[in-house]
Amino acid sequence: MIRWVCDVFMGQLHIDNILKDMENVNVDGYLLSDFSNIRYLTGYMPTSFAFLVIKEDPVVYVSSMDGELAREDSSVEVKNFESFSSFIGDLKSEVSNLAIEPTLPFESYEKFKDDFNVSCEKFVNKQRAVKTSEEIFKIEEATDIAQQAFREVNFIEKHDTGVLENIAAYELGFFMRSNGGECESFDTIVTSGSNSSLPHATPTSKSLKDPILIDWGSKYQGYCSDNTRTIIYSEKQHEIFDIVKESHNKAIQAIKPGVRCCEIDRVARDIITEYGYGDNFIHSTGHSLGLDIHEYPSFSSNDNTILENGMVMTVEPGIYIEGEFGVRLEDSVKIDNIGRILGKLPLKIE
Amino acid sequence: MIRWVCDVFMGQLHIDNILKDMENVNVDGYLLSDFSNIRYLTGYMPTSFAFLVIKEDPVVYVSSMDGELAREDSSVEVKNFESFSSFIGDLKSEVSNLAIEPTLPFESYEKFKDDFNVSCEKFVNKQRAVKTSEEIFKIEEATDIAQQAFREVNFIEKHDTGVLENIAAYELGFFMRSNGGECESFDTIVTSGSNSSLPHATPTSKSLKDPILIDWGSKYQGYCSDNTRTIIYSEKQHEIFDIVKESHNKAIQAIKPGVRCCEIDRVARDIITEYGYGDNFIHSTGHSLGLDIHEYPSFSSNDNTILENGMVMTVEPGIYIEGEFGVRLEDSVKIDNIGRILGKLPLKIE
Repeated sequence: MIRWVCDVFMGQLHIDNILKDMENVNVDGYLLSDFSNIRYLTGYMPTSFAFLVIKEDPVVYVSSMDGELAREDSSVEVKNFESFSSFIGDLKSEVSNLAIEPTLPFESYEKFKDDFNVSCEKFVNKQRAVKTSEEIFKIEEATDIAQQAFREVNFIEKHDTGVLENIAAYELGFFMRSNGGECESFDTIVTSGSNSSLPHATPTSKSLKDPILIDWGSKYQGYCSDNTRTIIYSEKQHEIFDIVKESHNKAIQAIKPGVRCCEIDRVARDIITEYGYGDNFIHSTGHSLGLDIHEYPSFSSNDNTILENGMVMTVEPGIYIEGEFGVRLEDSVKIDNIGRILGKLPLKIE
Repeated sequence: MIRWVCDVFMGQLHIDNILKDMENVNVDGYLLSDFSNIRYLTGYMPTSFAFLVIKEDPVVYVSSMDGELAREDSSVEVKNFESFSSFIGDLKSEVSNLAIEPTLPFESYEKFKDDFNVSCEKFVNKQRAVKTSEEIFKIEEATDIAQQAFREVNFIEKHDTGVLENIAAYELGFFMRSNGGECESFDTIVTSGSNSSLPHATPTSKSLKDPILIDWGSKYQGYCSDNTRTIIYSEKQHEIFDIVKESHNKAIQAIKPGVRCCEIDRVARDIITEYGYGDNFIHSTGHSLGLDIHEYPSFSSNDNTILENGMVMTVEPGIYIEGEFGVRLEDSVKIDNIGRILGKLPLKIE
């Protein structure tokens, strides 16, 4: 299959870049346990415990359970993980300055700290922030699939016929699959009425009320999409919607290579604050996405990362009024000189 | 709602037990970041970053995004997490010997290591291993829901009419919801033909072949179920099925309070080894389950935990023949003097 050939090829390029990063900080081994990082560099997505060691000849150590899968998919050598002591024994013969990932659990870190000079590096996450054209294609496909499914569900009709939140959410998942998506990119949020003031509400077994907030995405060849729409009814909901829409649009207009992430958050937040709802915008403005739904960097007030061509990030301002309702609008944007929105679904659903 | 009253009450009892454990090892603060552990002790399930600090007056620090939800659900005081520096400032005024969880990411551990005497403790996971009768009731409900959904899908008919693996998997999810489940307890595995030799196979968009291996579970009030059935066709599949069934049944017969987990793994593995398939049983024999699908302890060769009344664990031996097929059979068992299997679904589906 062509896509695997491409993935393997890019994986080797990515590994070469990581090796250069390692040389710059005098690290001779880099231990990766994050599943998506392993997938990004080898093509193999673990389903169980695995360690990838990046060094001159990279090796991925897998549980016996994943042996067949890893041998099929991995572009780097596969070995069976027997025990921590034999793994560390192997590693010590070649590595003395070992980099680990920030997400390595403390319990695992403790097993390495006495035998290596351990440092913590984010090389892979930084590299993943800038997508190849193939990766962007997959995120676009995932977005098109998810948006087509959204249209097919027809939430306005569902609302009018009293369908339950969790049944509507499940139908969205069905249509994402029938349009070619692998699965949801995260648990679909379909929330309505006063529950919509909870940004991460779980769909209930109650009939759809108004407004209806839908936050959803699909996966295509491992890559995620992410969108939010809020379907509004009352006058006050329209008023809040217009503020969120202005914040969403102005933030996207401000996106271009060279701008800092925190600046985009400031643009989005300033507008909502000017209208008096600053305290009701209770999360950051957006995040990068790719193999994971939340990746580095973020549009948040303390993220000074400079935007680069080829990043893909969400813009998702929201206003949440406790006990009343919430409105959030979210699109994913490819960072280039025009800040292109992925997908074609309008903000206002009528 | 009655169930929340019960949860809150049990949460306080659980916290009192943890405080005693802490006193025994001279720890005056216990930092928890695992979502299920926080849910277990407070009733509040984070949807975003959160820290629970167990001390004389426990406090859960949450992101602004989760404020409303936490104030609704938490039985302990809720504060807003502003920044690591203010959080650590708060903590330092009351705590000097700080316990952390084994899963705390290295990056977070680094923020605490200079200001506290840090130790790593598993008190909550150990306590969660023994379920209350209310927790067992929820796991049983989840099991009944999942098994009823399995019957409604009718995989044999699906196979005969050429339904796709991922569509059958999705239908199983639909019936779990329509029978009262909240969601899947993990990504449903429906795999068939030669793919069934991958223990954690992802459902494909290909028609069901034989054999069909289904590993699925639902959640009820936060608690997971877990079962596997393999529907067999050929003579060789029947032969392998009988070996796995013998291993499954003998392991369950060996379960009783006082026996070590590794002993149950040995019983299951010995049978498969006697028939010459020891190398094809490529995972451990089972695991505890509850709020999470995989909990402490495990039926694995290196787990010396002694079984206690009230634990609930899966027994899931399997034989995987690369390039041909796999057979796994799994039930969840309540540990007591009779080793009671949850649910009533027969092992052989005909």
